[in-house]
Amino acid sequence: MKAWQLDGFGADQLHLVERPDIVPGPGEVVIKMSAWSLNFRDLMIVKGSYNPKLRFPAVPLSDGVGEIVALGTGVTDWKVGQRVAGCFMPGWIDGCVTEAKGKTALGGGAAGVAAERVAIDARGIVAVPEHLTNAEAATLPCAAVTAWHALVTSGGVKAGDTVLIQGTGGVSLFALQFAKMHGARVIGTSSSNDKLNRIQSMGAEHGINYRETPEWGEAVRTLTGNVGVDHVVEVGGAGTLAQSFRAVRMGGHIALIGILTGGAATVNPLPVLMRNLRVQGIFVGSRAMFESMNKAIAAAKMKPVVDRVFGFEELPAALDYLESGRHFGKVCLER
Amino acid sequence: MKAWQLDGFGADQLHLVERPDIVPGPGEVVIKMSAWSLNFRDLMIVKGSYNPKLRFPAVPLSDGVGEIVALGTGVTDWKVGQRVAGCFMPGWIDGCVTEAKGKTALGGGAAGVAAERVAIDARGIVAVPEHLTNAEAATLPCAAVTAWHALVTSGGVKAGDTVLIQGTGGVSLFALQFAKMHGARVIGTSSSNDKLNRIQSMGAEHGINYRETPEWGEAVRTLTGNVGVDHVVEVGGAGTLAQSFRAVRMGGHIALIGILTGGAATVNPLPVLMRNLRVQGIFVGSRAMFESMNKAIAAAKMKPVVDRVFGFEELPAALDYLESGRHFGKVCLER
Amino acid sequence: MKAWQLDGFGADQLHLVERPDIVPGPGEVVIKMSAWSLNFRDLMIVKGSYNPKLRFPAVPLSDGVGEIVALGTGVTDWKVGQRVAGCFMPGWIDGCVTEAKGKTALGGGAAGVAAERVAIDARGIVAVPEHLTNAEAATLPCAAVTAWHALVTSGGVKAGDTVLIQGTGGVSLFALQFAKMHGARVIGTSSSNDKLNRIQSMGAEHGINYRETPEWGEAVRTLTGNVGVDHVVEVGGAGTLAQSFRAVRMGGHIALIGILTGGAATVNPLPVLMRNLRVQGIFVGSRAMFESMNKAIAAAKMKPVVDRVFGFEELPAALDYLESGRHFGKVCLER
Amino acid sequence: MKAWQLDGFGADQLHLVERPDIVPGPGEVVIKMSAWSLNFRDLMIVKGSYNPKLRFPAVPLSDGVGEIVALGTGVTDWKVGQRVAGCFMPGWIDGCVTEAKGKTALGGGAAGVAAERVAIDARGIVAVPEHLTNAEAATLPCAAVTAWHALVTSGGVKAGDTVLIQGTGGVSLFALQFAKMHGARVIGTSSSNDKLNRIQSMGAEHGINYRETPEWGEAVRTLTGNVGVDHVVEVGGAGTLAQSFRAVRMGGHIALIGILTGGAATVNPLPVLMRNLRVQGIFVGSRAMFESMNKAIAAAKMKPVVDRVFGFEELPAALDYLESGRHFGKVCLER
Repeated sequence: MKAWQLDGFGADQLHLVERPDIVPGPGEVVIKMSAWSLNFRDLMIVKGSYNPKLRFPAVPLSDGVGEIVALGTGVTDWKVGQRVAGCFMPGWIDGCVTEAKGKTALGGGAAGVAAERVAIDARGIVAVPEHLTNAEAATLPCAAVTAWHALVTSGGVKAGDTVLIQGTGGVSLFALQFAKMHGARVIGTSSSNDKLNRIQSMGAEHGINYRETPEWGEAVRTLTGNVGVDHVVEVGGAGTLAQSFRAVRMGGHIALIGILTGGAATVNPLPVLMRNLRVQGIFVGSRAMFESMNKAIAAAKMKPVVDRVFGFEELPAALDYLESGRHFGKVCLER
Repeated sequence: MKAWQLDGFGADQLHLVERPDIVPGPGEVVIKMSAWSLNFRDLMIVKGSYNPKLRFPAVPLSDGVGEIVALGTGVTDWKVGQRVAGCFMPGWIDGCVTEAKGKTALGGGAAGVAAERVAIDARGIVAVPEHLTNAEAATLPCAAVTAWHALVTSGGVKAGDTVLIQGTGGVSLFALQFAKMHGARVIGTSSSNDKLNRIQSMGAEHGINYRETPEWGEAVRTLTGNVGVDHVVEVGGAGTLAQSFRAVRMGGHIALIGILTGGAATVNPLPVLMRNLRVQGIFVGSRAMFESMNKAIAAAKMKPVVDRVFGFEELPAALDYLESGRHFGKVCLER
Repeated sequence: MKAWQLDGFGADQLHLVERPDIVPGPGEVVIKMSAWSLNFRDLMIVKGSYNPKLRFPAVPLSDGVGEIVALGTGVTDWKVGQRVAGCFMPGWIDGCVTEAKGKTALGGGAAGVAAERVAIDARGIVAVPEHLTNAEAATLPCAAVTAWHALVTSGGVKAGDTVLIQGTGGVSLFALQFAKMHGARVIGTSSSNDKLNRIQSMGAEHGINYRETPEWGEAVRTLTGNVGVDHVVEVGGAGTLAQSFRAVRMGGHIALIGILTGGAATVNPLPVLMRNLRVQGIFVGSRAMFESMNKAIAAAKMKPVVDRVFGFEELPAALDYLESGRHFGKVCLER
Repeated sequence: MKAWQLDGFGADQLHLVERPDIVPGPGEVVIKMSAWSLNFRDLMIVKGSYNPKLRFPAVPLSDGVGEIVALGTGVTDWKVGQRVAGCFMPGWIDGCVTEAKGKTALGGGAAGVAAERVAIDARGIVAVPEHLTNAEAATLPCAAVTAWHALVTSGGVKAGDTVLIQGTGGVSLFALQFAKMHGARVIGTSSSNDKLNRIQSMGAEHGINYRETPEWGEAVRTLTGNVGVDHVVEVGGAGTLAQSFRAVRMGGHIALIGILTGGAATVNPLPVLMRNLRVQGIFVGSRAMFESMNKAIAAAKMKPVVDRVFGFEELPAALDYLESGRHFGKVCLER
């Protein structure tokens, strides 16, 4: 079978190779993959900025969907033919995360899913909502679960709350959709007025161009009657946190998810204590969160925003496209 | 000014009387009332089944809306002319309820609002959403806050959850609206197929006629893939709880709100422990919950369901109508 | 190997039989048992009042401790020689309970542990605190986890709270110990002044003889400045709930655990709503709760109260003794 | 009456002045003060590093205890003669903090208590535990409530948890006492082995000299079986957070309380997201938390650690002493 393999850091080290066919170990299922989605983390992994200790050869990608084609011994909960996705961390079933659970992350501590067939622990997979295409379903494991964990499981977002999203990447658009699904108001930022129009057409109440309004934290306060938002879905990291500290209400909640503005930057934590803020780090989520989210997506017949679908063989081009920042929503692969 | 006064138990003891004009005490506001709404509790109070120790003469009703016309000394948060409603318990501002807070309930421990003007502690009132008519706004203090407390504050309802409502009274319809607002599915019961059609047109997924299906708990299980619902908004009390114990999922939540089936009946609590249920008694809610709910209602431009509006002088007829059970939603008064 | 086997309902249907030796299935461990403890549930199971549909022959008992003597294929987290206990429901690892998890209860839906050797899913066992004897460690899976779940995981007991316990069975004494461990005050009831003295020597502040004071709910209110307790650990069920509703504070918490006063009795639920009570059914708990509790027991070097230790062959006599109600704490078996 | 007055920034601007006697406004009580305690915040206020916009003259100090000597109109909950303390923010009664509530902070947004008599809103005071001396009771409003909020209200500390405290100031020692009260283990850091001995004699399990072990985060991991602590009571701020990120377990809780290492420093927030941490800013707490804490202190007969008591007239010397860092526990004034 074919698989993408990273033989060293750098996009040029990414090779489509032939690998021996895979058989399920005890307790595993083998999934014949049909679609994948890319995350910013995948870019960082390829470049070496995510995990400098990655062992080669490594199969990349955490997100994908496919059909069960084989069951290992002892697997009773699943049948051949079911459409499923692997959890980002197949070892995190429920409850709190631990370091051991964290090490099962696909495409990170464990092998990724960029292959025609993959074997995953049967406890670490979930059925995906029927109304989704394969590409749409492939967007769920990382970005959607992260947004759900941030706003719903951990944030307890409720109707009448106000949520700030940053940019128009996968996590931010899922956060917009989940916020609206719970009756919350959404304010979004972007450097592109065109993208701001698009999030407003998806239900965001206000859009702020952070190029035109560098002090967007203050602008958010003004838009919220000088109170601030209840939740910030923070994907920028240290480079945007100082503005987020302004944008959030006293006693409010910042879900710290991403570091798109750079992993080495620093921030002054003083406002966290003076304003009684909760800064909650979010590292994807558990299978229980994934299942709970799927019930919501199915009930609402919600559609993930897929920007563009590449062929499985076009992974390098898809990563380039993701890096360009031109996307609005998720970038996927399909075969 | 005119006021309704109860001079003893029984509908015939309800008299429209002239009372001296009211002036605000320190920390109070005087509200010139424009609309009221009725609750089942008001019927019970008039009949003597709610509080047998009620002192006469008593002014009934807990729910109403009006305009501030006078401020007592020390009141700085409010202005004359604002449209406000009194909280059901003006003494319950935030946090946990206590017996002292409970005793401030309007029309119960404290004087009610069935008067042209009422004086209420300025800390115990809230501004009402602007898009609502007076009658609509008058429906909020008891039934809407109860439903919000049950499903949102205490229940933490989220998208993908399933909620069971019983009948089509005020609390049940608000619960339906708040559940939908948070992306939840709703199943409803009624003895009238016509009313079941109406809740389905409001977004309920399924309706069960409990006359035709007395074992509706089992029917609910079947409708939920033999799992049961996540939340029951229990307004019937002991007479319906046994079915609710069947209808709810293991580990699920029953918000125990009403005793429409009778206050002396009993129930076997065994399923509560065997099925790890949470039975949460809900006695209206705090000002903080009311304010939080109002933000949600304003954001969604949600409209309460007003069945019929009587004149202020028609209180006895309005109570009769409420008792008949013909209503769908709230019964109001207006002047 | 020897095992206790129930061949029909009734104590005379309990037979010590020879069974074939046991080998671990995939993912299982085999435990050579050294001690067991009895619960009221075991009495009910033998008599047929717990699960009338029990299939015979059935191996009884849920609680026991022993040493791992064999590992099935795929088991990597455990080593031969470790001292462990099975979870009451080996299938409930973390998160919410479900019906599927509930069906894995030892001695109920699944085979019990009253045998020299037992095979259990390796995910459903826990290491027990080192400072405990075998008999002490054997008391933990049902009664201790139940009390921990009730007061700590679900009740969030904290210093300064007041907890009411009923009688001096296993759950009640564990609740007393866990309450004291968290800085809470404890009030206890019993029909024996001698037992009341014993709980006071363990740190309970007050004891009430419910024979002498049938209106003990009122007595508890008086002892708490007419406020009521924060938590009731309710083991009596319908027969004691009415008093518990008096004893608990407005907005308080009743952990509904047992039905020692009878499984068919009923109660009027009205106070639950009028007093904003939370009645939380507790059906033992998850492996995560068990592990969390073990950390607390180890940190405090807490010792469970073992009333009496019988030999493994004396199970019928031990059950008789439990039924007599003469015990104070747990009744155990050892070999 | 005498009062301390700050006429500009700097210790030399602190003057003991004669002020007109005070009468209670509507809803206020007048308290005749008998003891006070100092916080690091008071030092910062005097120097101008806390609130550069402070208006002069300003009465400093937030913490004190005294006897009610006069009641304003409308005050019914209190009697002359009761011993009480003002809340740090008398406007924060319950529920979430807001900016308006934050502005009522004594000695900050509102006048402080460094006077023989002070007038405070009757809703913003609490009775103090009877077994405490005046100086001991005076330590509670800021440091103790902060530690309680951090570990109990927000952190939900429970038996078996491990808590890291930093240094031996007021908040840290209260955190040690509250952690022990709930059955938690404590690890402490200090630059003084003598102080480490003292916290160990108060029940801390381990002490780490951060001068001798600059990588104390790693040392804490080692002491906790390479898992990390459940809670960090972070009083250092940016200068210690990087070590705290190492010291805490995956999914753990950092209560961010102080910035003793400097208010302008910055930190890399990356570990917050990669390790799913919760960084919860804590800005003292509400009256409800204060009351809840007092019940715990009274039940345990807990004694705050008072390092040294100065006379009321010695405020400047007391501040100098606090700044020297020689203290172990609280520095108080008395008259």
